[in-house]
Amino acid sequence: MLYLVGLGLGDVKDITLRGLEIVKKCSKVYLESYTSVLSAGQSQLEKFYGKELILADREMVEQGSEEMLQAAKNEDVAFLVVGDPLGATTHSDLMLRAHELGVQTRLVHNASILTAVGCCGLQLYSFGETVSIVLWTESWKPHSYYDKIAANRRRGLHTLCLLDIKMKEKTVENIIKGRDIYEPPRFMTASEAADQLLQILETKKEEGVAEGDLAYSENSMCIGLARVGTETQQVVCASLRDMSSCDLGGPLHSLVVPGKLHPMELEMLKLFVVDQAWFDEVCRRSTE
Amino acid sequence: MLYLVGLGLGDVKDITLRGLEIVKKCSKVYLESYTSVLSAGQSQLEKFYGKELILADREMVEQGSEEMLQAAKNEDVAFLVVGDPLGATTHSDLMLRAHELGVQTRLVHNASILTAVGCCGLQLYSFGETVSIVLWTESWKPHSYYDKIAANRRRGLHTLCLLDIKMKEKTVENIIKGRDIYEPPRFMTASEAADQLLQILETKKEEGVAEGDLAYSENSMCIGLARVGTETQQVVCASLRDMSSCDLGGPLHSLVVPGKLHPMELEMLKLFVVDQAWFDEVCRRSTE
Repeated sequence: MLYLVGLGLGDVKDITLRGLEIVKKCSKVYLESYTSVLSAGQSQLEKFYGKELILADREMVEQGSEEMLQAAKNEDVAFLVVGDPLGATTHSDLMLRAHELGVQTRLVHNASILTAVGCCGLQLYSFGETVSIVLWTESWKPHSYYDKIAANRRRGLHTLCLLDIKMKEKTVENIIKGRDIYEPPRFMTASEAADQLLQILETKKEEGVAEGDLAYSENSMCIGLARVGTETQQVVCASLRDMSSCDLGGPLHSLVVPGKLHPMELEMLKLFVVDQAWFDEVCRRSTE
Repeated sequence: MLYLVGLGLGDVKDITLRGLEIVKKCSKVYLESYTSVLSAGQSQLEKFYGKELILADREMVEQGSEEMLQAAKNEDVAFLVVGDPLGATTHSDLMLRAHELGVQTRLVHNASILTAVGCCGLQLYSFGETVSIVLWTESWKPHSYYDKIAANRRRGLHTLCLLDIKMKEKTVENIIKGRDIYEPPRFMTASEAADQLLQILETKKEEGVAEGDLAYSENSMCIGLARVGTETQQVVCASLRDMSSCDLGGPLHSLVVPGKLHPMELEMLKLFVVDQAWFDEVCRRSTE
């Protein structure tokens, strides 16, 4: 049996009792290490579980998970994923290959940023499509997520923006030279995301998009979330302009671009506001 | 301190270690009993925690939670919610009142149907706005959710339909006569939801909406999910017509109306198909 076990968002204690029971009984335990990270590191988890973890990076899962699946034919094997096992990716690939090999799979769900984002006071029902914002490079500045945010906002819906994580990435030079040298992990911050959204806004204006047709302005509200579900969680509600210079500390960060706000949502957001005058103006306009 | 603790979706073992630690140390523990239910009942939970639970129905939470908040001023109080504490409702009302009274709140997240729905193989990123389908009565047949499903489908997005739960409801007669007599709980099934969607379709046709402008047909795919996250979980992929006569067993049920399907999503859905010929036809059309 292959168990896909969610670890939740915080530290070692965010696993469920069912999840822990499974980890304890499995003969092999893999830790998925490329779509998210816990504030607790591998060694803390190993100490807590009292067993060794096998690190599963993207290469291993996408290409070499054969070993894991073969083991799961005859033994109980656990594949641990931060958040919900289906949150950041469905891991459908893995489940389908298991099915082909006749390996049974079982999911153990847990909290995911997709629902924990509700901690900022926005109604989960009112979120539209989730988007991913990637870290731009000098030569690669995609902005397809702009259109999705725009489409959500036209329908009055909020957008959760998941921010890029770069784990075990190689520089172009190292790829060309065939060297297995990895860059240090990088986590996109809410301020970097806000900055990219503002840069897209400038591009749209230069392209001649009329003010009224833009998805947002630099004055539009956004909500930055950091380390959701941990002791040091931080939530800040500010304009995109102010968010672009706001430091929310260590990873992981997310950004929300809200749509139409319900009075109760505004009441909750008030708790996370830095610039009160700006917020009062937003509230005044929203009730006009 | 007031802790809002998610219980997850299955039974007593789906609480997190952090959640259980908090329940154990709290002097008062309330169980929210009106937005969802666990397969484990109150007495099982009480036995497992070794403490008495105070049942919190809608009336109590919306009107009389003063007692709970007053207690939380000086003691540790837990408010247990099936799923994630913010899943079905933000409980913003409660959190705002706590804030006004100077009572600190802390969230303990857990799995929610909003993410666990990924077990059917659909990518969570590709879900649009979540809708609630209410049980119709003789005289009250709202269908505002049709427009939301339509809007999601126009954008190629999937729709998760949460199905009505009636807990502690009174008949109109008993309300008028001021009698505190409650009807037995009722849980909407996936087949009832599919049937309502088909009835709306008929109404739209009678109103003269052209075939091409309808959000779906009776042949459109839907996915019925029952008891997600439990041992007896069931997932069925069928046409709306077939779903309307499909029995998925005991509560809770949900229904998904998919948008544009990725080949990998189709591969996964294949595992849950009853009528293979119908599904092959769907796949053939989706690749045209």
